[in-house]
Amino acid sequence: MPPEEIEIIGKIEKLWSGAANSKVLLGIGDDTAVIRPPRAGEEVLLTTDQVIENTHFVRRTHPPRALGHKILARGLSDIAAMGGRPVCFLLSLALPQWSVGAWLNAFLSGAYDLSQSTEIPLVGGDIARGERFAAAITVVGSAPAGKALTRAGARPGDVLYVSGQLGGSALGLARLRKLSGAARASRDNAVRRYLWPDPRLRLGVFLRAKMGATSAMDLSDGLAMDLARLTKASGVGAEIQAAQVPLFPGASLSQALHGGEDYELLFTLPKKVHPPRTFRKLPLTAIGRIRARPGIDLVSETGIQKLRPQGYEHFRG
Amino acid sequence: MPPEEIEIIGKIEKLWSGAANSKVLLGIGDDTAVIRPPRAGEEVLLTTDQVIENTHFVRRTHPPRALGHKILARGLSDIAAMGGRPVCFLLSLALPQWSVGAWLNAFLSGAYDLSQSTEIPLVGGDIARGERFAAAITVVGSAPAGKALTRAGARPGDVLYVSGQLGGSALGLARLRKLSGAARASRDNAVRRYLWPDPRLRLGVFLRAKMGATSAMDLSDGLAMDLARLTKASGVGAEIQAAQVPLFPGASLSQALHGGEDYELLFTLPKKVHPPRTFRKLPLTAIGRIRARPGIDLVSETGIQKLRPQGYEHFRG
Repeated sequence: MPPEEIEIIGKIEKLWSGAANSKVLLGIGDDTAVIRPPRAGEEVLLTTDQVIENTHFVRRTHPPRALGHKILARGLSDIAAMGGRPVCFLLSLALPQWSVGAWLNAFLSGAYDLSQSTEIPLVGGDIARGERFAAAITVVGSAPAGKALTRAGARPGDVLYVSGQLGGSALGLARLRKLSGAARASRDNAVRRYLWPDPRLRLGVFLRAKMGATSAMDLSDGLAMDLARLTKASGVGAEIQAAQVPLFPGASLSQALHGGEDYELLFTLPKKVHPPRTFRKLPLTAIGRIRARPGIDLVSETGIQKLRPQGYEHFRG
Repeated sequence: MPPEEIEIIGKIEKLWSGAANSKVLLGIGDDTAVIRPPRAGEEVLLTTDQVIENTHFVRRTHPPRALGHKILARGLSDIAAMGGRPVCFLLSLALPQWSVGAWLNAFLSGAYDLSQSTEIPLVGGDIARGERFAAAITVVGSAPAGKALTRAGARPGDVLYVSGQLGGSALGLARLRKLSGAARASRDNAVRRYLWPDPRLRLGVFLRAKMGATSAMDLSDGLAMDLARLTKASGVGAEIQAAQVPLFPGASLSQALHGGEDYELLFTLPKKVHPPRTFRKLPLTAIGRIRARPGIDLVSETGIQKLRPQGYEHFRG
């Protein structure tokens, strides 16, 4: 093993050495990690995600620290969407020569800080040389047996909600591309929204345990595309009130409907349930209702139109 | 979401649709997978691995079906090394345009066939465009509480063993690089050894449950490098008899000591334990002993020399 790889692994082990907790019986350094089984009556949640250079980010505009935060935030957001609690994570890195050193240190710091604030240790990983930087993450979580929130439980009559404000990430990305200087850009609220998504872990648990949410998912590819997935999985349709969609300051309705990476939660509650207006200062807004008839209608002053995914997506030709 | 990605995900879901089993409560298609907790008294094993174009393989010589097999085999080999049983896996793919179509189908078939023969379902994944093909895998396994075989348990006086024959993979890779035509190359035994590693899952369970192995790991980077890791983790040294190292037919001692990707098991047994000579036709060979004094000596007719990792490694500058 070349000195450089040993050094990187040593750095990672050292960084997370204080993060071991009672769930981890054996962490980094053996063939596999060994973790305690979930408590009796709990199930295991598993999700995987990746960020790839020139697909999910470009070096010129994306600070490495924010990128390290984002790869973990994306996995945590999936756990949040199930109403779960995160347990630990694994990280694979493909490293071009340019990334080794200060850039990688900053990337790892970003992941480390979020792992600390959410109290989940890194328990394993893999490092290899690559021509483009890429990181793949697996986050393990847990949820009470049979209680995880899925996309499949929305029922006609349920009210449809979103947390927070939408479109901020798309607005931030547009601004980041125009602005020069990451330092200057990072002071912009929308840019911060794009760079530093905040996984809604506490909200997910609240919706599952206290609100009896019938379905939930996180908004990663835009409300139009993600709602189409939720309604398809539930075998229902939906009607959205355009005027009710909470817009991030400065964002357009189109950015709110089709911009991705907001990482807010989209969820449904039975009609009789009335959630608080905010949860830990995060607005919870009713934006429409679930109906039996398939398809999604967007209702506005000018009439009713079909809402079709236009698609924020990474997978471009 | 563009039609191409939907098509690929649909293909993957269809391929593994019959593979769902009682462990999987919710598979591909939601924010996370949900799996049953391990049985009472079992712990969770987690390992992650990756294959990256031009780092771990080149398109010209590596059949995609073999590559799909190998990415899963590498993860399963880690589970085998702990004496664990595999439960399920997740797969992330970075796909260049050239890989989409017949090549990807063959890659997926290779992973699928091994997942079927080892009875583990795919429960989640991520697909994105990338400039270079890359796959990252996470394999989840289980082992009885406190019983997983680690690298840290070797004690002075223990006898050191390897399964199978070593150096075949390095020999096969050398031959594959020389030969033209993957079809012709695949009939060579050493090439097959390199392309189609066989994770020693049953052996791992046998060593843990029946032999009371004190330590184990899989040989991924060569005996010299991997034994250095095992002795370091156990705080011991070792002495190897060069004449005892089982050579793959045609392989040199150097390939057996320093060639990677054999995916055999390296393990230690207390002196009083006498394992069978073969386990399901796989030779189990004593190659040396563990001692208290650090360092690894290679004993041969010509004398004693220090065995230092020369290092098969992917991570090249």
